[in-house]
Amino acid sequence: MGLLRAAGVVYKPVEQLDLGPDSNEIYVEADIKAPRMGGLLAKIFAWILESRIFGALAFYILKRLNRVHKFISNATVEEPPMFVPLHPYVDLDEQEVIEIDSDASPAERVQQAMNCLPLTSENSLDAFKFSCFRRWTIADYSRAYRNGEITPLKVAERFIYAVHESSSRPLSIAFFINYDAEDILRQATESTLRYERGAPISALDGVPIAVKDEIDCSPYPTTGGTKWLHKVRPCTGDACCVARLRSCGAILVGKTNMHELGATPSGINPHYGPPRNPYDPSRISGGSSSGSAAVVCAGLCPAALGVDGGGSVRMPASLSGVVGFKPTFGRIPHSGVLPLNWTVGMVGVLAGTLEDAFIVYAAISGHLPSHEPTTLPPKIHFPLLNSTNPISNIKLAIYGEWFNDCNEEIRLCCSNAVQLLCERYNWKTVEVTIPELEVMRLAHYVTIGSECSTALSSHLENLGRSEFGWDARVVVDIYGAFNSNEYIKAQKLRYRHMQIHNKIFAKADVIVTPTTGMTAYSISKNALKTGELDYVNGGWL
Amino acid sequence: MGLLRAAGVVYKPVEQLDLGPDSNEIYVEADIKAPRMGGLLAKIFAWILESRIFGALAFYILKRLNRVHKFISNATVEEPPMFVPLHPYVDLDEQEVIEIDSDASPAERVQQAMNCLPLTSENSLDAFKFSCFRRWTIADYSRAYRNGEITPLKVAERFIYAVHESSSRPLSIAFFINYDAEDILRQATESTLRYERGAPISALDGVPIAVKDEIDCSPYPTTGGTKWLHKVRPCTGDACCVARLRSCGAILVGKTNMHELGATPSGINPHYGPPRNPYDPSRISGGSSSGSAAVVCAGLCPAALGVDGGGSVRMPASLSGVVGFKPTFGRIPHSGVLPLNWTVGMVGVLAGTLEDAFIVYAAISGHLPSHEPTTLPPKIHFPLLNSTNPISNIKLAIYGEWFNDCNEEIRLCCSNAVQLLCERYNWKTVEVTIPELEVMRLAHYVTIGSECSTALSSHLENLGRSEFGWDARVVVDIYGAFNSNEYIKAQKLRYRHMQIHNKIFAKADVIVTPTTGMTAYSISKNALKTGELDYVNGGWL
Repeated sequence: MGLLRAAGVVYKPVEQLDLGPDSNEIYVEADIKAPRMGGLLAKIFAWILESRIFGALAFYILKRLNRVHKFISNATVEEPPMFVPLHPYVDLDEQEVIEIDSDASPAERVQQAMNCLPLTSENSLDAFKFSCFRRWTIADYSRAYRNGEITPLKVAERFIYAVHESSSRPLSIAFFINYDAEDILRQATESTLRYERGAPISALDGVPIAVKDEIDCSPYPTTGGTKWLHKVRPCTGDACCVARLRSCGAILVGKTNMHELGATPSGINPHYGPPRNPYDPSRISGGSSSGSAAVVCAGLCPAALGVDGGGSVRMPASLSGVVGFKPTFGRIPHSGVLPLNWTVGMVGVLAGTLEDAFIVYAAISGHLPSHEPTTLPPKIHFPLLNSTNPISNIKLAIYGEWFNDCNEEIRLCCSNAVQLLCERYNWKTVEVTIPELEVMRLAHYVTIGSECSTALSSHLENLGRSEFGWDARVVVDIYGAFNSNEYIKAQKLRYRHMQIHNKIFAKADVIVTPTTGMTAYSISKNALKTGELDYVNGGWL
Repeated sequence: MGLLRAAGVVYKPVEQLDLGPDSNEIYVEADIKAPRMGGLLAKIFAWILESRIFGALAFYILKRLNRVHKFISNATVEEPPMFVPLHPYVDLDEQEVIEIDSDASPAERVQQAMNCLPLTSENSLDAFKFSCFRRWTIADYSRAYRNGEITPLKVAERFIYAVHESSSRPLSIAFFINYDAEDILRQATESTLRYERGAPISALDGVPIAVKDEIDCSPYPTTGGTKWLHKVRPCTGDACCVARLRSCGAILVGKTNMHELGATPSGINPHYGPPRNPYDPSRISGGSSSGSAAVVCAGLCPAALGVDGGGSVRMPASLSGVVGFKPTFGRIPHSGVLPLNWTVGMVGVLAGTLEDAFIVYAAISGHLPSHEPTTLPPKIHFPLLNSTNPISNIKLAIYGEWFNDCNEEIRLCCSNAVQLLCERYNWKTVEVTIPELEVMRLAHYVTIGSECSTALSSHLENLGRSEFGWDARVVVDIYGAFNSNEYIKAQKLRYRHMQIHNKIFAKADVIVTPTTGMTAYSISKNALKTGELDYVNGGWL
């Protein structure tokens, strides 16, 4: 196997990279050499990977074809490894922000976030009554509860009915892996009583929020989308972020469906059914936080929690037309989240509006438990979204080659959005080049793969692979194929890209790009039973 | 190879471990299954490891025999990985310390350290004149320079003569890989002029200090003990710690010998000769900072810098009868040190006395460059060693099984030392059990091995292995044999041991144990040419 040794890239020093618009750094498109597989093909592929001799050969070919050897294994990278993205914090002098102390309680933080938002006019709900479909926001719920227009209990009853209806034929949208009507009604009754006493805890009191089944939430097991994980790892209580939402009075309405172990971005789960896209139930809602995206998209909850290790919040949000927010590493406690990886996964928020993502973020961020070290300062800056003096001088970095590497309809839509922002707020775009994006995609794959494989290794010993869906099984096989040199080199590339991004952020405030290169694709029949492996579409997502 | 699958250990939760004296946790002795190899045997072993088929088999057998499969690869470890030992800092209320701000210059910090030391009587040097061998301390040099008893130039001349003499027959001690008489005399002349002007920079002005050839120091190349590394990685200036010593006026007297790439603790270098033990030149001085230990042991320098990734400062210090100090991770800048690993190696100090190690530590510690993140606070507590009120209530943790796992003479000597401390200062010993020490030794081996192999991988591509000594070559072969699962599990065990140690340190202030299990052994003839692989002795070290 050493006969055709792939030469490794020698990365030049970051200082010598031209990050300007006329850079001669070449944009390398994702060129994924793996067939789309479902059904029997996925099964055969798993068998090959798990055979000692053919497996070693298959991994060698896969790594070589997909340029892992060239860009990672045999590459020369001068940078030190950065295992955890804890880079030195720079205290920026930001305008139009208020400083929130992390010692504030979640409910206090929600109030501080609400104070940053524009006042919505009281008649917005009346307008809603006669309009076409429009999702209720957290502010809508809060106002309607306070005004006595509706009670949390009534909302809970309607929610349960709607979930039941949509999960049955003809829609058959499998939003949840578990939801317990009794538990929901109990929480709703308590919230209703608080409103009756005139003492709601916060703007989130009585607001239905769903939780991805990768995050612990009583009284449910945490399956991670599998048929077995909850049996070997019982859920013993709320995750830290869930406990914070509960302390704000939110109604936790169940555990949303997800791709098994977050293995691919299709979001299809062969065990619990597909969380179809509410805009078109023949299509995927995207993954891995597929149920969280679908439930928000359908308007059943204004917000839901997801976990994002490699786009698992942002991609389904994009494909389902909602907001997806992955906060900075270290901002939200990870305690009580399935340890499928340790250095890339973060709790994130899916919401109908930016404001609602912001309110939920306010509730769940703040102090970390002492065993989760961070270099971030305890204070957080909240943007004043109600300022009459909108922030000017924002510079939007755009890497044209990357921005345009998508479907024509997405390109047009995103270009128009950027143009609108620039016209309305007098913001400027800055053309940049972000080199080695495809390298970073591969380094990320090596990282999340190695960590996930390690996380599951002792379960694989005990359970064997037969408990897995076929798609997750192939993914876990591939995840286990990296050596320590490849893992550590991936961390070196991670440090390198942090340096590159620091240089980009010295030129601009935000990097703007479409979240996904394509819109939601159709669910094919054989994917429903075995799951689906579609690395080519996956890469484009 | 899967036929005889080794069952993995399932580690129980740290809370359930009994760390008391009557714990039923078993002490597992290091039981290293590898033959001592030098000469032809080392060459044959290297060939086997580098062959694709026999190599894979050999690695499997080695991992299995040495319990890597049992304790790491197939083990179930609940803890998250801790890649870099940046644990949350606890601000202790310590007595008899002063707080030093890291903004102070190195020379100011040296002065602050001197203020913490007892005043040595002025006649100590007179006593020295008539006594048997006694090493000069930094305070001795400083006082003699100030009193005009001797000049830095005179010391430099004698130093150069002594190094020349001892590196020739019959002693043949290869202290240095490089030293430049002209450069030393130039520094000494400048220092002498400063004393003549009555303006020495600090107590280190004119004091000879040697630097391990793993740390950049102008005008020398940094070989890392190899014949090739300086050719592919030219030294472009002083490492940060060396620059700090230079700014204090210290005379940097050259680059000390070391084990090639720090590969084993024997310290024997086949390319530059053996840095023999000055107490008995037929024996090793220990490694990998072998030259630094020998040069301090011989009294040529009061202190020298080393680098310690797995005992490489502490072991040679122990075998050469000097002080070896590895500071807390993150206390000393690593910039300008060969990147042979990233998460275990630290610059350390070898010195004739504890006071001198402390003074050099004061000079080189302090602010880190911004790309070296740390969770340590910028201030450091220096102990007041001149207090008339010696610190009481110190508790010394002793794990009997581990403490006594050494030669009888070492055991007696160390037991007496502990008894003396307890009698003189009324300190107490606390019997403890530190479980899984052998597991931690293996986890450390996987960690340093994987990182070193990654660090050298691109050089291995370009140079091939023929440039290596045979012992370093075998070590590098073995270092490259770990997969990402093993590397990440080793980091999980690292987190686990940090928790265990936190619990021990809640019971006691210091853990006391002999540094090495044996005294310096004899250098065998075939080790001189090929280097020597002695994992059994190495494990005991």
